[in-house]
Amino acid sequence: MDALKPLSTIGILGGGQLGRMLALAASNLGFRVHIYAPEADSPAYDVTRFFTCAAYDDQTALAEFAATCDVITFEFENIPLSTIEFLETLAPVHPNSAALRVAQDRLNEKNFAQQHGLNVGAFAAISHPSDFAPALQAIGAPAVLKTVRMGYDGKGQQIIRSADDAPAAWAHLGNVACIYEQFINFEAEVSIIAARGHNGSVAIYDLVENIHEHHILARSIVPTHYGAELHAQAAGYATRVLEQLNYVGVLAIEFFVVRTADDTLNLYFNEMAPRVHNSAHWTQLATHTCQFEQHIRAVAGWPLGATTRFAPVELRNILGDDIENFATDAAAPNAKLVLYGKSDVKAGRKMGHVVMVK
Amino acid sequence: MDALKPLSTIGILGGGQLGRMLALAASNLGFRVHIYAPEADSPAYDVTRFFTCAAYDDQTALAEFAATCDVITFEFENIPLSTIEFLETLAPVHPNSAALRVAQDRLNEKNFAQQHGLNVGAFAAISHPSDFAPALQAIGAPAVLKTVRMGYDGKGQQIIRSADDAPAAWAHLGNVACIYEQFINFEAEVSIIAARGHNGSVAIYDLVENIHEHHILARSIVPTHYGAELHAQAAGYATRVLEQLNYVGVLAIEFFVVRTADDTLNLYFNEMAPRVHNSAHWTQLATHTCQFEQHIRAVAGWPLGATTRFAPVELRNILGDDIENFATDAAAPNAKLVLYGKSDVKAGRKMGHVVMVK
Repeated sequence: MDALKPLSTIGILGGGQLGRMLALAASNLGFRVHIYAPEADSPAYDVTRFFTCAAYDDQTALAEFAATCDVITFEFENIPLSTIEFLETLAPVHPNSAALRVAQDRLNEKNFAQQHGLNVGAFAAISHPSDFAPALQAIGAPAVLKTVRMGYDGKGQQIIRSADDAPAAWAHLGNVACIYEQFINFEAEVSIIAARGHNGSVAIYDLVENIHEHHILARSIVPTHYGAELHAQAAGYATRVLEQLNYVGVLAIEFFVVRTADDTLNLYFNEMAPRVHNSAHWTQLATHTCQFEQHIRAVAGWPLGATTRFAPVELRNILGDDIENFATDAAAPNAKLVLYGKSDVKAGRKMGHVVMVK
Repeated sequence: MDALKPLSTIGILGGGQLGRMLALAASNLGFRVHIYAPEADSPAYDVTRFFTCAAYDDQTALAEFAATCDVITFEFENIPLSTIEFLETLAPVHPNSAALRVAQDRLNEKNFAQQHGLNVGAFAAISHPSDFAPALQAIGAPAVLKTVRMGYDGKGQQIIRSADDAPAAWAHLGNVACIYEQFINFEAEVSIIAARGHNGSVAIYDLVENIHEHHILARSIVPTHYGAELHAQAAGYATRVLEQLNYVGVLAIEFFVVRTADDTLNLYFNEMAPRVHNSAHWTQLATHTCQFEQHIRAVAGWPLGATTRFAPVELRNILGDDIENFATDAAAPNAKLVLYGKSDVKAGRKMGHVVMVK
């Protein structure tokens, strides 16, 4: 693919903060942006002249959208696979539907990770009540039951402490396809964010240490408390995954850090996100190429940008009515404040973030 | 003025690259942006949901625009003063019309600079053919005849080598109000970019050295070849000008660097721009708060951001069909490329810029 010329149009499925920041980055590179989202109050609509508010299964609207786009991408993995497959018949779409098929399904991604040599905790598929007995026998309890699809920020999860819990927990999740996952005894959660271009070049940001509160990312810290070796381990895995999926764009992989009895540090695959990722928002302050620009560069067939980090940084999410303190955040020294233009303040909703150089 | 809340609307008059970059910066802070411009193909329209294409003297359109805005600003000084004065009756406007009255008129700004103790080369007003004889007698020739208003990038200027040239030169400029300016024997051109908030706080970026080609800014270099003392001299002048004008927003002042016989360096006022300025685009790479965000912070009543520069930088403008080399520019190491989304490529037209860390 030739590099897309300035004024080409980047189509983005999804109108949340990630779509909004992708749009802003694309505009800075001289592209036009067309946002497609089903929600009437999508904050990404505010930052482009071109948007379509329609359902993901509206093939007429999708076809009209695709006709305006030189390349199409998406801000999150819960776009229906059929939408991406339909769009692929009309325009270039990156990341590709094969990558999305893996990444939007917890069973697929665990199987994929295991096949490609990443450490994965024990897991079992649950699609029928009779699946619980062998799963509990193999994995034990307590463990976590998660919906295979559509889970994020702790949604779609139930802890199972004994076989007796299983029917109610599964019913709570809607009796949909689930995965039963071993508890991993980890000492930290980390993520690696990497990009791959059309020509196969790969660029990787520094490993990030993530602190969650109430299942929502609260803070990310770079560098981690671990050394270069753990970064190299994660970077190796990320490169392998990008290449195996023939991936174009930014990809995030979350790992658990597990310390073995002999004090070795191992990374266990938790999940991947075929998109820009909250834990890399610090790249807006401490690198020349933020993850949003990097993703646009990749999908547009441009050379990837440098990922060198200039300083130790900490990212803090602004959740719910924490946004009322915006003036204090705006005055923080050595910091960058980004707000998402969301009109509806709800508890735990991601309203913005602050990146601080330490 | 209280700090404007997120989702407030910033109105911007002018739809060129400066308006576009102001809009992108405002969006990053969670504001909405309403662009008002007369040109149908304004590149700033592409980066916001809200824009009005109407003439600057269309009071109906201006009133409808003002009704949607919490604060109004502008991207350049050639907005008619009457437009700003009309809008001031409807909404807060920053910078204020008094500052614009000074800055959009070369005679006013020279008189203002002189009154406030800045070094200014000899000049004379030309509003009638009979004004030339005393002007040439006082100032000599060669010298430069400039239109008092609407000049930029070398437009609206004629060199006068003798009294005989004067009638034709003035006719070439349309026989409008002009200023006859002494040639300053300078060894460099520099600019200082400063911001002032509602509360009177001032933040100043490092002095910039500018290299023009064919009267258009080609490159800007920071730091300059001169030391901290020259920066301090310029910063002092900028602070004085900001305070005297009760200015809110970003202001740029261009100076000539003149070396005296005893090897002292003096700054001579050239012109000021009541807006963000081409020579400060490097702040997008090498500071935490770029000039566009700084201007939005100022006009929104937010605290000003830090102006500390991290590294030596060079800014290069991408002019005309230089934009065809965008893929090479995109691959430059230690650089940030910004393109303006302009559809019409003309010789000398500013299409984008590259900031390089040196």
